[in-house]
Amino acid sequence: MRSHYCGDLNERHLDQEVTLCGWVHRRRDHGGVIFLDLRDRNGIAQVVVDPDTEAAFATADRARNEYVLRIQGLVRRRPEGTVNDNMPTGAIEVLAKDVEVLNTAETPPFQLDEYGRVGEEVRLKYRYVDLRRPEMADRLRLRSRITHQLRNYLEEQGFLDIETPILTRATPEGARDYLVPSRVHDGHFFALPQSPQLFKQLLMVSGFDRYYQIAKCFRDEDLRADRQPEFTQIDLEASFVDEEDIMGVAEGMIRRIFKEVKDVDLGTFPRMQFSEAMDRFGSDKPDLRIPLELVDMGDLMSQVDFKVFSGPAADPKGRVAALKVPGGAEISRKQIDEYTKFVGIYGAKGLAWIKVNDRSAGLEGLQSPIVKFMENVIEQVLDRVDAQNGDIIFFGADQAKVVNEALGALRCKLGEDLNLYTQEWAPLWVVDFPMFEEDGEGRLSALHHPFTAPSCSAEALEADPAPQLSRAYDMVLNGTELGGGSIRIHHQEMQQAVFRVLGIEAEEQQEKFGFLLDALKFGAPPHGGLAFGLDRLIMLMTGAKSIRDVIAFPKTQSASCVLTDAPGEVSTQQLKDLHIRLRQKPQAES
Amino acid sequence: MRSHYCGDLNERHLDQEVTLCGWVHRRRDHGGVIFLDLRDRNGIAQVVVDPDTEAAFATADRARNEYVLRIQGLVRRRPEGTVNDNMPTGAIEVLAKDVEVLNTAETPPFQLDEYGRVGEEVRLKYRYVDLRRPEMADRLRLRSRITHQLRNYLEEQGFLDIETPILTRATPEGARDYLVPSRVHDGHFFALPQSPQLFKQLLMVSGFDRYYQIAKCFRDEDLRADRQPEFTQIDLEASFVDEEDIMGVAEGMIRRIFKEVKDVDLGTFPRMQFSEAMDRFGSDKPDLRIPLELVDMGDLMSQVDFKVFSGPAADPKGRVAALKVPGGAEISRKQIDEYTKFVGIYGAKGLAWIKVNDRSAGLEGLQSPIVKFMENVIEQVLDRVDAQNGDIIFFGADQAKVVNEALGALRCKLGEDLNLYTQEWAPLWVVDFPMFEEDGEGRLSALHHPFTAPSCSAEALEADPAPQLSRAYDMVLNGTELGGGSIRIHHQEMQQAVFRVLGIEAEEQQEKFGFLLDALKFGAPPHGGLAFGLDRLIMLMTGAKSIRDVIAFPKTQSASCVLTDAPGEVSTQQLKDLHIRLRQKPQAES
Repeated sequence: MRSHYCGDLNERHLDQEVTLCGWVHRRRDHGGVIFLDLRDRNGIAQVVVDPDTEAAFATADRARNEYVLRIQGLVRRRPEGTVNDNMPTGAIEVLAKDVEVLNTAETPPFQLDEYGRVGEEVRLKYRYVDLRRPEMADRLRLRSRITHQLRNYLEEQGFLDIETPILTRATPEGARDYLVPSRVHDGHFFALPQSPQLFKQLLMVSGFDRYYQIAKCFRDEDLRADRQPEFTQIDLEASFVDEEDIMGVAEGMIRRIFKEVKDVDLGTFPRMQFSEAMDRFGSDKPDLRIPLELVDMGDLMSQVDFKVFSGPAADPKGRVAALKVPGGAEISRKQIDEYTKFVGIYGAKGLAWIKVNDRSAGLEGLQSPIVKFMENVIEQVLDRVDAQNGDIIFFGADQAKVVNEALGALRCKLGEDLNLYTQEWAPLWVVDFPMFEEDGEGRLSALHHPFTAPSCSAEALEADPAPQLSRAYDMVLNGTELGGGSIRIHHQEMQQAVFRVLGIEAEEQQEKFGFLLDALKFGAPPHGGLAFGLDRLIMLMTGAKSIRDVIAFPKTQSASCVLTDAPGEVSTQQLKDLHIRLRQKPQAES
Repeated sequence: MRSHYCGDLNERHLDQEVTLCGWVHRRRDHGGVIFLDLRDRNGIAQVVVDPDTEAAFATADRARNEYVLRIQGLVRRRPEGTVNDNMPTGAIEVLAKDVEVLNTAETPPFQLDEYGRVGEEVRLKYRYVDLRRPEMADRLRLRSRITHQLRNYLEEQGFLDIETPILTRATPEGARDYLVPSRVHDGHFFALPQSPQLFKQLLMVSGFDRYYQIAKCFRDEDLRADRQPEFTQIDLEASFVDEEDIMGVAEGMIRRIFKEVKDVDLGTFPRMQFSEAMDRFGSDKPDLRIPLELVDMGDLMSQVDFKVFSGPAADPKGRVAALKVPGGAEISRKQIDEYTKFVGIYGAKGLAWIKVNDRSAGLEGLQSPIVKFMENVIEQVLDRVDAQNGDIIFFGADQAKVVNEALGALRCKLGEDLNLYTQEWAPLWVVDFPMFEEDGEGRLSALHHPFTAPSCSAEALEADPAPQLSRAYDMVLNGTELGGGSIRIHHQEMQQAVFRVLGIEAEEQQEKFGFLLDALKFGAPPHGGLAFGLDRLIMLMTGAKSIRDVIAFPKTQSASCVLTDAPGEVSTQQLKDLHIRLRQKPQAES
């Protein structure tokens, strides 16, 4: 139907007859001539329709924005003074000989360049219009390109693309499952997978050696801004490997796509132990673009006569830490009040601070509501953070978990607000995670998942589980966890030991994980793997602010699709077929 | 952990130290020496463990089948007379220096080379063992390779890989939907997609121009041998195209992978109208490898005094047809009785036949229970099918639908039983399908789906819908429908006309398809596409007899997974969260 894409035309096509198809992006009448900007997936070409070509002119005259046209014409140089250097096609225009309306268009619910005037709900309801915006289309095109390159990389490395089931059994990833009632098996339900974890382990037991899949995963969680009920994971697993092998493959993959897609060389990723990341950045996914660090003050604050500080300093589970912001003395009281509210989200009961106006002036040179409580250690405090005139120092004192989360988040917020970034991309590996986390009442749960191998023996694990480390690793980029994985347990005895530590007794083990325990006893190789969040990777690489901007048809934050109006009501007969009924009938049934 | 894959070793590695990891495929003790066939994904290498290497020998001595080992050793030439030319590694062996047990293995539920002795249920329950069989592993490896090449082809052609939702709204593909209760929206349900049909059409309205996806689709149907609750579709759609464009891309794709994967040149695919396919082969997916054809006999049989034949011959909806099998006179009465039963499956009330023993002997030379009823036309009948001595001619006489299905199926069965195939691969396109099929009571339903464009105007369609043809096309290979598609409706008025013909009135149109009708009015381009069944394509290319043999973790024919025991029971709390209850409580709840 066409000879060229609009966006591909340039001076090489001068004097050629071309046929274009596309949408009227904009229409102008100027000097008795009609100018149409015709848009297709590759860009925009300017079409000129002269009254001399009578039929074409009449057709063009009734064309409105977003009409779909087919245009035949001649490529010619734009007259001097009308060349547009900002457009790839800006040197040429097409003089139309024939204009055909392939489809009309009503006035769209919003103009493409005025999408900001309508709410996101309108954009989602008319998603097919929103996706016409070059910014949105570019993101999905980049997404397609990135997945293509990910696949190529992994297949070069010998990974096989193997599909695992969507209709499956509940897996214990921790989140709520989406359930699918079975028609054939009365009272029974499939679950949609939270990840292909157990299937990929079984593939290793089968001997496939290297598996990957770009897999849809599902979690029925309360949605935050960066979550979706269904999301996409780059999932991989390999046999006869250790941490270095998997991290090598994964790091190579991310480095490659950054090089190919963004021409950015990420270099070798630094590694950091979980404990160091928490100590220095209050986070297991530190944003290393920000040159701020948490500094421990517990030893000094245990000496002050100020319970807010000395209490946590004396508590083995407490922490007192400082966060110095160079030049931060300019932060206003109002802003400090806002930061105090901000850390409150993370449970912090307040935000102490010291502004260093003039270090040579002693206490006089300090501005702070709390300095009077710590006169005895103030010089040591200032020295430890190397305070300079013009700095501000924030303090957190509470349970370590609260201090880490509050100051860790504050650190990122300050980085963004004050634009402190020292580099554009800061990748790292976080390693040596604990096997378990405690719920405060001594109950342990798996920090990653219960199939993660510990660094110790099964005996050591059962004797003293809490402090044991796992063979897990997370890849972090700019403060976002891009992916995570681990070496898995491949011995049945070890798997049973971990289950016991988690309080899963023999009968429950057999019922929930019998097939895994079986598989481990018929010759399971050492294996490990990793999963990346594809949506987040694309967000980072495209600079999108919302996960919804990198997914063609996303759900809203209330887990619905306003475009198709899903979820919807279903007929009583359908429910009968599935052996279920509604707890409370909705008002109308179709 | 290893230096080489077992299966990759050959004479180029002579005198090299290698480290291998794999499974004990077989173990033999011979002359005081232990021979281990070590298996990994690439093949098998023979390892020799000599009593001289004491520790290695002791370890090897306790290794049993399917133990996972790591072996260090030296590659050497096998002694003369022990070279195995059937194995890629058959010229060499590895003299072990060190043997390490990475994991033990209990005796597996079946030996890999004795899988035929256990039922499919056991193979599915221990799928991770079954997938170790080279035949099974090869199929999944080939599947991975084929999807990789499909993707490469489509991306070279400018198709973008775009994901569409799994949690969506019911689409009217005709089969039963899998439903997913919503926790957030009381009484509402998502449906799993039967295909991404409407989403890909919306992507065309968005201007993506060329879309593809290897997409999971779901149908809650009663399962036949070649169906699965979830299956995989190669789905594509393009804008500003006609039938030739889509068929060209699709044909090129299949031709390419057959060339690359099987070194088979499929040539240019012939085309056949739906009506011709039904007339000549009784099927809209004729297997052209079989040189048998249905021949119409209605005009002749209307002249006989035999109601079984003359009745259908006079009925406008009836058909009388013959199927001549050259050399088929050798078919025994017992076999004919079986074929009679076979056509009964398709509703045929009997199977008339004539054996041509000696044409020169007139009626005497014919053996048949029916020839006496058609003496007046018998020469014309024999001439029309060009009957030769030794042939058999079968007859069908009934409603055309029954005759086509019965003789069409008989034709395929005869082709298989008598091995009549004239070629290995016989692709074709079937085109010019009817828009609608009638249910016998005058109600029309869409033969493809209601978004398929008709070949006529909206006015003609509404004036006389039944005989109208659609712009649909199916790709058929060896009697299997590999894929199908159509040019879609891109004008709102036409879409509404089709809905009206199908008895879907304005209100229901709006409720079920409002978003599509909306999209069609905001500038929808002409577009069309196609979807291939990936599982079936892989079946054909690997020669697998069951769809379950080309899927890593398939469901049984009762739509369950015996490996993970899905679907399973769920807790009352989970049901409460989803606002549903069971119609009848199962005996036990977990």
